[in-house]
Amino acid sequence: MGKLMRSFWTPAVTEREIPAADEPPVRLTLLGENLVVFRDTEGRIGVLDEHCPHRAASLFFGRNEEGGIRCVYHGWKFSVEGECLDMPTEAPGSPMRTRVRAVAYPARLAGGVLWVYMGEGDAPPLPDFEFLGLPDDHIYASRWEQDCNYAQAMEGELDSAHVGFLHSLVDKIEGDAQTLTGQYFRDDKAPTWKIVPTPAGFMACNGRRTAEGQRYWRLNQFLTPFYTMIPPHPDDAQLVRMWVPMTDERCWVICVTFRPDRPLGDKELAAWRNGDVAHRKVVPGTTVPTERKDNNYLIDRHAQKTQSFTGIAGVRAQDAMVCESAGAIVDRTREHLGSSDRAVVAMRRTLIEAAVACGDRGVRPEGSLMPHLYRVRATQTVLPEDTDPEDSDALMATARPKEGAATQD
Amino acid sequence: MGKLMRSFWTPAVTEREIPAADEPPVRLTLLGENLVVFRDTEGRIGVLDEHCPHRAASLFFGRNEEGGIRCVYHGWKFSVEGECLDMPTEAPGSPMRTRVRAVAYPARLAGGVLWVYMGEGDAPPLPDFEFLGLPDDHIYASRWEQDCNYAQAMEGELDSAHVGFLHSLVDKIEGDAQTLTGQYFRDDKAPTWKIVPTPAGFMACNGRRTAEGQRYWRLNQFLTPFYTMIPPHPDDAQLVRMWVPMTDERCWVICVTFRPDRPLGDKELAAWRNGDVAHRKVVPGTTVPTERKDNNYLIDRHAQKTQSFTGIAGVRAQDAMVCESAGAIVDRTREHLGSSDRAVVAMRRTLIEAAVACGDRGVRPEGSLMPHLYRVRATQTVLPEDTDPEDSDALMATARPKEGAATQD
Amino acid sequence: MGKLMRSFWTPAVTEREIPAADEPPVRLTLLGENLVVFRDTEGRIGVLDEHCPHRAASLFFGRNEEGGIRCVYHGWKFSVEGECLDMPTEAPGSPMRTRVRAVAYPARLAGGVLWVYMGEGDAPPLPDFEFLGLPDDHIYASRWEQDCNYAQAMEGELDSAHVGFLHSLVDKIEGDAQTLTGQYFRDDKAPTWKIVPTPAGFMACNGRRTAEGQRYWRLNQFLTPFYTMIPPHPDDAQLVRMWVPMTDERCWVICVTFRPDRPLGDKELAAWRNGDVAHRKVVPGTTVPTERKDNNYLIDRHAQKTQSFTGIAGVRAQDAMVCESAGAIVDRTREHLGSSDRAVVAMRRTLIEAAVACGDRGVRPEGSLMPHLYRVRATQTVLPEDTDPEDSDALMATARPKEGAATQD
Repeated sequence: MGKLMRSFWTPAVTEREIPAADEPPVRLTLLGENLVVFRDTEGRIGVLDEHCPHRAASLFFGRNEEGGIRCVYHGWKFSVEGECLDMPTEAPGSPMRTRVRAVAYPARLAGGVLWVYMGEGDAPPLPDFEFLGLPDDHIYASRWEQDCNYAQAMEGELDSAHVGFLHSLVDKIEGDAQTLTGQYFRDDKAPTWKIVPTPAGFMACNGRRTAEGQRYWRLNQFLTPFYTMIPPHPDDAQLVRMWVPMTDERCWVICVTFRPDRPLGDKELAAWRNGDVAHRKVVPGTTVPTERKDNNYLIDRHAQKTQSFTGIAGVRAQDAMVCESAGAIVDRTREHLGSSDRAVVAMRRTLIEAAVACGDRGVRPEGSLMPHLYRVRATQTVLPEDTDPEDSDALMATARPKEGAATQD
Repeated sequence: MGKLMRSFWTPAVTEREIPAADEPPVRLTLLGENLVVFRDTEGRIGVLDEHCPHRAASLFFGRNEEGGIRCVYHGWKFSVEGECLDMPTEAPGSPMRTRVRAVAYPARLAGGVLWVYMGEGDAPPLPDFEFLGLPDDHIYASRWEQDCNYAQAMEGELDSAHVGFLHSLVDKIEGDAQTLTGQYFRDDKAPTWKIVPTPAGFMACNGRRTAEGQRYWRLNQFLTPFYTMIPPHPDDAQLVRMWVPMTDERCWVICVTFRPDRPLGDKELAAWRNGDVAHRKVVPGTTVPTERKDNNYLIDRHAQKTQSFTGIAGVRAQDAMVCESAGAIVDRTREHLGSSDRAVVAMRRTLIEAAVACGDRGVRPEGSLMPHLYRVRATQTVLPEDTDPEDSDALMATARPKEGAATQD
Repeated sequence: MGKLMRSFWTPAVTEREIPAADEPPVRLTLLGENLVVFRDTEGRIGVLDEHCPHRAASLFFGRNEEGGIRCVYHGWKFSVEGECLDMPTEAPGSPMRTRVRAVAYPARLAGGVLWVYMGEGDAPPLPDFEFLGLPDDHIYASRWEQDCNYAQAMEGELDSAHVGFLHSLVDKIEGDAQTLTGQYFRDDKAPTWKIVPTPAGFMACNGRRTAEGQRYWRLNQFLTPFYTMIPPHPDDAQLVRMWVPMTDERCWVICVTFRPDRPLGDKELAAWRNGDVAHRKVVPGTTVPTERKDNNYLIDRHAQKTQSFTGIAGVRAQDAMVCESAGAIVDRTREHLGSSDRAVVAMRRTLIEAAVACGDRGVRPEGSLMPHLYRVRATQTVLPEDTDPEDSDALMATARPKEGAATQD
């Protein structure tokens, strides 16, 4: 699975979190590795193993200046590419300076997110997400920590069936049919699933019978190895979520919301910065959620009785609670999967098959090679009850990759 | 040993700690399993695996209402017996609803304590402790945590020889012969032991030569798998202590004090609620002792020099200190057992033999099948120096199971 | 390696830290063992296994009085030699009292430091460090914790090449040629090494070409198993540092500074007590450094840009940072050793060879048997560029063991 993951670019941090040129580096744990992130004097971004290749002192304490980061132990200095620029403890002509390199990963800034390539060989093209082609003021990205395995965290997103419960209000309160707690979810709590495989993952279509004898279809996207898209409310921003392994037992969530057609508005930006709606509330200046496992997500048992189904504030915190409370790595032998878990099953199968193909037969995953496969959207519509969502132009025209989409490479 | 433990009812929490009907559940770790405890709308008590059988989300965050607890992830709802009452994400007629059950353990409230049966097959009768037949106002029960294996914790209670040291005052202070620090313990610090096996454990008789050429005998009860009784001071309440495995490295202590003949008095109740005498002082609203390992039991070294043998406040904290400070699971190969450790040796042997019989030969322990064996008391008396305590009617009449004792089943 | 370590005396705590006679014991972890240290009524020092040999209760909570330490559990009492002085729970004549002993290690107070012998057989003579023969007012010793393996910590001291970087000021600030940040270190950052083996370790000579075409030589001492000496500035006190294994992942550092020729001055004592210069700043009353791993050594990034190379206060904290930040036990397969690491390589080789000889062939290390080998000094001088330091009488006369040095045994 590690080899599969490393066939792809890995989203790492948001642009806002990257230090300015010549400022001190920040730490980052990604795919189980401890790294430092910094910008050199020219503003180029370096992502290096935290430990100096000499005797492993941490480069977090290093001096970032004059074109590279210098370990304070013996003054060895490295460029953003990992080249040793200076090795003052060796004689000037020593071949050791060119032979020793810091572990450095290619890094690219695009769409408000830093992408890192941690695999072998040349980096593939970046996945051509729609937001990568947009101006900065059309995009908002945030990052937070989740206390469980990335796959488990992602399951909480692919699992559409929970929406009518976990994020709902108590029955006494009447909601708006246009909201997550709305009429569609209330009318049919056991959605029908249709999984449509794609070369980079699958479309998870889930349909709910409406009061009018039609079916409300949501089409979520799963894109290998850990991307999800769910359809926004009408008029809301598009979004992509990224469930990035930090270690085997923890993950990063990066959420990008964007407007394809216009700059973001002050009001939506303010809400997102506050951790509302699509994003998650964190302790300011950190990636630590305010509602989290070790404070029982600040559950309000009175509110749970009288207002919201969970008593926990924030849709994101609600999702995190169900995923994290199952344990860091859930014991799957004790699960009982039902018909509502079709997308979860499809995701597990897709990843395992890709990992086997990649690890055992050396097959590079298609998604990593064909960036336009990521130029897709999640979407939703209402169809006649018996229409197969795959036959719906309304759904498919939005969901399928755009022809002629720009690539950045 | 796990199989042996699970042949018995396990005391779990005190009645006071159980939430009211339809109130949020509480967490409980017992025999290494994470559970939730709640009362349904009719007041029936449920003890369920904390993790929902669907995808393992914690039922601690569940909604307890209308006859069962509902997982907030997908709305699956379970009765106190573990039956799935509602599985709204599946089609109404799905056989899955009746096939899937939550792990639920039979629970019984008796004597101010909740008892849980975590074993196979039908639950046996409850052990017929004397206090189980008493009115509520004759009984006070409390519960606290101890930071070591249950067996080790229990050894601190069975070990009568330590009383003359651990709980004593410094020699300069003259005590009252009627107290734990009294004359009997001071006159003879190397008690004689007589272990009298019973079908459910043993009576640990320990005798101390008195100044008058007689012998003061204490008769402690050990009842499989983890119950102890020590004789109270004259006119004090009877007591049972339960040393219940939480995990391999921690245990719960449940202490029940009771008056067979009358309601409890305000004064003794106030002392017990304050964690004095037979009970332990805890941080209010928790099961965490105030004097504990990570604060060195608030040892007062000046008091240790001038007043009490340990400088630690509270007999219970003193016992916990010696047991916990040996480590979570003591390395028994480094021990040197002496003649004062007869009861400890007998307890280990009794449990190991019962575990072998139960695990290897499938023998259900007698204690679990014959509830009247628990209708016994610890007691004490003074006998002529050479009298065998087993020949003393005064001791045996109190200590032996009562004939015709009521059973609750 | 454990057997090798235990062939030597182990320095344990400073004299100041040892409780007075009949005062409560203190805890000490040494070579992975939990111990207690106390003085009996006559002032003799005991170093005993923390756990009572009876049933493992902690002797830390014991009563230290009337010639020994008494376990509060059952009153068993032990002398500083581990002899059981009283076993009141056994009959007076019981052979058990003489058979059972507490694990007790021989302890000697010398040179302001408590030395403990944790090996087999008779204790060898103490290593005859120069300061062991001095009056108390010539010596100052301190002790602190380091969060990594002892070998790794020691490498930070043997590694002379880092001095011109880690402990330097930023280039804009002109230093004094006589200081650590001085001209010699600035003129030649890639020192030449000459390792001179000795029967107890080696002399690590490192030379720097000076502006005047000469070479400035520093001669550091490594003495098995974990002693280092570095040359002081002219007129500064001599020093010995001891890198003592606490566990596999942590170590104690004991630093002794001394004046062979006169009592210590008030000014230097005040600085050392404050944790300056050769010693380390700690939280008062503890061995916990103020600048430490879990607070990022209080790094001041502004100071790092404008004043000191690291932005971390204190030469000792700087050394600890590079050693600890590499991890508790560094993964040596990822290192790239260069010509500057000759002393580190020599130390590893010396210890491994000695451990193999001791463990496999039972060879007692020479250093443990010949105390005068420790009567040496680190030193420094300036020589003509091509002079071999081993041929320099100025260096060798100071560095070699003194003939006729006093031994304390």
